[in-house]
Amino acid sequence: MKIELQCPMPQLDFEVITLGHGSGGILTNKLLESGVFKLLSNDLLDEKHDGAVFNASGKMAFSTDSYVISPIFFPGGNIGELAVNGTVNDLSMCGAIPAYLSLSFIIEEGLSMKDFWQILVSIKFACERAGVQIVTGDTKVVEKGKGDKIFINTSGIGTVHPKAEIHIKRLEVGDKIIVSGNIATHGMAIMSVREGLEFESTILSDTCPLNHTIKSLLDEFGTDIHLLRDPTRGGVATVLNEIARDSKTGINIHQKAIPVIEEVASACELLGLDPLYVANEGVFLAIVKADIADSFLHSLKKLDFGKDAAIIGEVVAEHQGQVILTSKIGGKRVVNMLVGEQLPRIC
Amino acid sequence: MKIELQCPMPQLDFEVITLGHGSGGILTNKLLESGVFKLLSNDLLDEKHDGAVFNASGKMAFSTDSYVISPIFFPGGNIGELAVNGTVNDLSMCGAIPAYLSLSFIIEEGLSMKDFWQILVSIKFACERAGVQIVTGDTKVVEKGKGDKIFINTSGIGTVHPKAEIHIKRLEVGDKIIVSGNIATHGMAIMSVREGLEFESTILSDTCPLNHTIKSLLDEFGTDIHLLRDPTRGGVATVLNEIARDSKTGINIHQKAIPVIEEVASACELLGLDPLYVANEGVFLAIVKADIADSFLHSLKKLDFGKDAAIIGEVVAEHQGQVILTSKIGGKRVVNMLVGEQLPRIC
Repeated sequence: MKIELQCPMPQLDFEVITLGHGSGGILTNKLLESGVFKLLSNDLLDEKHDGAVFNASGKMAFSTDSYVISPIFFPGGNIGELAVNGTVNDLSMCGAIPAYLSLSFIIEEGLSMKDFWQILVSIKFACERAGVQIVTGDTKVVEKGKGDKIFINTSGIGTVHPKAEIHIKRLEVGDKIIVSGNIATHGMAIMSVREGLEFESTILSDTCPLNHTIKSLLDEFGTDIHLLRDPTRGGVATVLNEIARDSKTGINIHQKAIPVIEEVASACELLGLDPLYVANEGVFLAIVKADIADSFLHSLKKLDFGKDAAIIGEVVAEHQGQVILTSKIGGKRVVNMLVGEQLPRIC
Repeated sequence: MKIELQCPMPQLDFEVITLGHGSGGILTNKLLESGVFKLLSNDLLDEKHDGAVFNASGKMAFSTDSYVISPIFFPGGNIGELAVNGTVNDLSMCGAIPAYLSLSFIIEEGLSMKDFWQILVSIKFACERAGVQIVTGDTKVVEKGKGDKIFINTSGIGTVHPKAEIHIKRLEVGDKIIVSGNIATHGMAIMSVREGLEFESTILSDTCPLNHTIKSLLDEFGTDIHLLRDPTRGGVATVLNEIARDSKTGINIHQKAIPVIEEVASACELLGLDPLYVANEGVFLAIVKADIADSFLHSLKKLDFGKDAAIIGEVVAEHQGQVILTSKIGGKRVVNMLVGEQLPRIC
């Protein structure tokens, strides 16, 4: 998507970010005034105060994430849209409708203005796609060699959907575990770039905003959705382990049911990785009441980013705190949390 | 303050932070469960979801800042308490009562667990002092040489004080400009460590939470307080320039009235720096209605961190968008925004 063509880079005095752009002084002001504020403009941001002020009522969700992904431009996206989608999705997992994001940059001296602008434009379009606004921000610059191009923190606020009652304590034996799409795609997209792997077609990151999909599901299924989680770092295996541990239930999953696109599966095999541990960005896990599972799946399959959804397991009374996988050939094994670090700086 | 003695470091398997601690897997979990969650424990954080959920109503403020200060331990504080106080103060400048903070780390591989723990303990005590809670967080680790020990982002939420009506548009000709304390202290504390300067007594950073002081002033003076800003990066000169520009008023300040402690003034002279451009962390500027200025000052002087407060200038109809300083010997000069970068990574 050559969306940056719609937002041509403004005339700037510098070709790269310098320490002065993080001074808080005239260069910081010039950078912001030359195009950043205009690009991301909305009533709250335009106030340019130390924070944004808005009206709120009811149950709110608040989430934060720092993004340190390398490379900053990757197949299927870049760190800018990832930072928007990631926090939008974290809020969605709380059953919230994301509304406002903060945006904070830590830039390594020397980042090209062109790269910075491209990231900003991606942020703008990701915000529009998700229906959220950047309302407050911060820009810091560190010396060459004290950072790595750009790190981005986004924090976000949203109102919890009136029908949402998402909580680990709501898990019941018999609940079904649904994954919203093909797993391990984001991790393998990054890994294949880093390792210089080539496949018939490029594996693209699945980064996307899940909030509209989640909202539709909450509208329809409300409190029958017991838990939502996005299996980012550590993958599906780690998140299911956290859920089993914190809910004190057992979890069974079925390898045959877990959707993985063929190229991703091959790449994982080549590199000796288990897709269950590979990071996702545009996938969520929903744990729902057993008797709505089929209609939940039916609805999800018709929604954005849900066409490959599948029921992959269930909550059981046995083996509390453990995740047990039934393999394709029928064997059973314990699935633990990710040990060590498989793919550093995946998000 | 040897506050870390009250919170002894838990037994950890590692002496330094490794990439695995940012994996989202078992090491991340171990690190958090071994002491971090317990240290910062509160009802919202203890939920350990992707975000925190709480009830809100009315006008809210939302702010963010990433802290990249170097060195991470400095005379008078460390990056942990700075990150809490800084965001608490940004919210206070919006007229808000800070309530909830997010906490996000970007750690360079190899940071000692001891340093990390000391920073965490400082965060805990800074939160208690300010009366805020860490409710959600994130931990990322980057390779050695791709960061610098630790960067911290805090974002914060608070409810706007019912009597607050802080807005750049409220500035009126005749309004008085009050500074809450001695300026340039934080910047010179950092600078003196970096330059290896020695003075009779060590210059300490002024980092502190201003929220209780601001709340008392809002209780007493309400809408007669027109604007609040904290002159951090770029110092008093830069913030006053932003105010003059955005309000389309003129600003006069009087050098004789600006409080600077003697050692800081000497250090500035030695290094050829103007205290007006040096960063502050525990100081705010208040622009108030002229006829309450004296009683505002009187009250502020009795509050925490306000004893050295002074009226330093006024809003005028002339020279719109400009800040004019009357020097100690009576000359007048234009004070511009900070040009270039004086002290990189000051906050």
